[in-house]
Amino acid sequence: ARVRSLADGAEATESFDRLVLGTGATPVRPALPGIDARGIYGVQTLAQGIELRGAVDASPGPHAVVVGAGYIGLELAEALVGRGMNVSVVEGAPQPMPTFDPDMGALVADALREIGVDLHLEQPVEGFDVEGGAVRAVRTKDHALPADLVVLGLGVRPASGLAADAGIEIGDTGGIVVDDHQRTSAEGVFAAGDCVETFHRVSRRPIAIALGTHANKQGRVAGINCSGGDVTFPGVIGTAVSKICKFEVARTGLSEREASDSGFDATAVTIEATTRAGYYPGARPITVKLVVERAGGRVLGGQIIGEEGAAKRIDVVAMAVWTELAVSDLLNVDLGYAPPFSPLWDPVLVAARRAVAVLDAE
Amino acid sequence: ARVRSLADGAEATESFDRLVLGTGATPVRPALPGIDARGIYGVQTLAQGIELRGAVDASPGPHAVVVGAGYIGLELAEALVGRGMNVSVVEGAPQPMPTFDPDMGALVADALREIGVDLHLEQPVEGFDVEGGAVRAVRTKDHALPADLVVLGLGVRPASGLAADAGIEIGDTGGIVVDDHQRTSAEGVFAAGDCVETFHRVSRRPIAIALGTHANKQGRVAGINCSGGDVTFPGVIGTAVSKICKFEVARTGLSEREASDSGFDATAVTIEATTRAGYYPGARPITVKLVVERAGGRVLGGQIIGEEGAAKRIDVVAMAVWTELAVSDLLNVDLGYAPPFSPLWDPVLVAARRAVAVLDAE
Repeated sequence: ARVRSLADGAEATESFDRLVLGTGATPVRPALPGIDARGIYGVQTLAQGIELRGAVDASPGPHAVVVGAGYIGLELAEALVGRGMNVSVVEGAPQPMPTFDPDMGALVADALREIGVDLHLEQPVEGFDVEGGAVRAVRTKDHALPADLVVLGLGVRPASGLAADAGIEIGDTGGIVVDDHQRTSAEGVFAAGDCVETFHRVSRRPIAIALGTHANKQGRVAGINCSGGDVTFPGVIGTAVSKICKFEVARTGLSEREASDSGFDATAVTIEATTRAGYYPGARPITVKLVVERAGGRVLGGQIIGEEGAAKRIDVVAMAVWTELAVSDLLNVDLGYAPPFSPLWDPVLVAARRAVAVLDAE
Repeated sequence: ARVRSLADGAEATESFDRLVLGTGATPVRPALPGIDARGIYGVQTLAQGIELRGAVDASPGPHAVVVGAGYIGLELAEALVGRGMNVSVVEGAPQPMPTFDPDMGALVADALREIGVDLHLEQPVEGFDVEGGAVRAVRTKDHALPADLVVLGLGVRPASGLAADAGIEIGDTGGIVVDDHQRTSAEGVFAAGDCVETFHRVSRRPIAIALGTHANKQGRVAGINCSGGDVTFPGVIGTAVSKICKFEVARTGLSEREASDSGFDATAVTIEATTRAGYYPGARPITVKLVVERAGGRVLGGQIIGEEGAAKRIDVVAMAVWTELAVSDLLNVDLGYAPPFSPLWDPVLVAARRAVAVLDAE
């Protein structure tokens, strides 16, 4: 392998028996008019985060625009509201958090508007107005939103160029193709993390999904295997949690839309409950949605939105998805109950019970 | 069935096609010298709880003694400390929370002592000193503890006497024997809740365990089946959570001791982690113990003790126990991560990884 030192630029050829590629992901930065103007920030690295904070500290003016309403964009929008800025979010999809189903996305939209975020949906960014080299507005189909500061949160793509240049197989997702040992198509070369595509256990399709949990687990597998061990990475189900304004939001497996796209005949149920026994101080609302295969009732996915204590309940759904449990089995699982922690029927079990009733009635 | 009205004492015979017994449990109240003295309280019913609160309100004197260091006893001990009393707890076992392994019980003991509870272990109650009809002291092997107020927290036994009198089969546990449809040995008679013995899915033995979660699920099954439906109750794994002083405590499946008693060749691992990413505000310590079968690494049980955010993580362990997952599979499960909710490797997965390493090294 040809190696360049970042310290002094010197290049050398380094031989290897085993190589692990961990090139990560690159933020999406579309070639739009004005995108290189001053005042437009990305936030992939710690240094970029510090730079953005410095820009806010310098009081650039009242208007911030966040481009993209995924996890990162919304976390930044909330932080900028907290810093006293007028914050607009522009998003091409008809809802924030497009990996969630529309009904759950609507709850997130309400929470954003409640803290004063000006949310512009179905308004993909088309360019930036620039004056004197600095951004002044964000252009969408219908708007020119005044902008003293812009943050891009348009997601990332696998940084698989180095591997592609070396002739290593790249998948349709743009990620490096690996087998269940994290081996690439090149002998002795492994890859792990945001640069690879991985196997989705429910859709049975390759997927490129940039999550630290996946990256770290894949890194463990690549590390063990490249040093003579023999372990497998069994794939992912896309579990993710985030905190957005008053809400904890979480998802796992397939959304209703993804289940349909993956060829499942699925239905979905949504229930509302509380995070603790209803009479216990601090009980907060929680909404649980389960996506269920019609024949047999297998749990294909779930989404949870709620207040404090809601998010990590997704792990029970993740375990059900992972082990391919049916809702008729899930509803009987012996989960923990005490008033400070849960209603007697855990909200996830209430959702399973509802799903059983819905399937029985069909 | 012979029925007596509690309102007017009138008796009548009521015929039935199907009958459901839900007679619940009776608090253990051993026939010790002085046990009927004034000032000795049980807390099974709401009325008893109100009575106890009234007794505390009436300032009976400074000394409270709680007999029994299970969930109920310890919750009461903490509440009495909160009301300004000097609280002693006497327990026959060498640790509080005897359904936990000794190492986890020791953490609970520390937390109790930290708030000022005087904890007397291996000191089963032997009787009560009484003056003028009122309790004055609690006698144990080594002590006579001054007592202005005593609360009994010695657990409960199935209230299966009515069923036994009717000739219905009672198990060695003292609970009514039921099949997986909640049917008793008598045609047309079902039973559910604390009065029955149920099937433990890991030990494969009948167990009498008084938990609202089990009772409610069994009641659903009995109700459906006695009205013409056909569903099964698949048994329990004894998942329970509680809040004791600063700690959230949780358990599921078999403890190390129970695994050994049930004939498993098991080992255990314990790890310490945090409830959130270490750098995130509010990250609190959490200790996770997994009990694992040596051959194959099946998860047999788990115990968690930690501060805020710890307890309900037991549900992931419960799902693993329920689905008979091996630690080598559990460690790869795609659980949710974001800094406010978890370290990147969820503490339960860290424990699974440790267990894999321990089993590999053996």
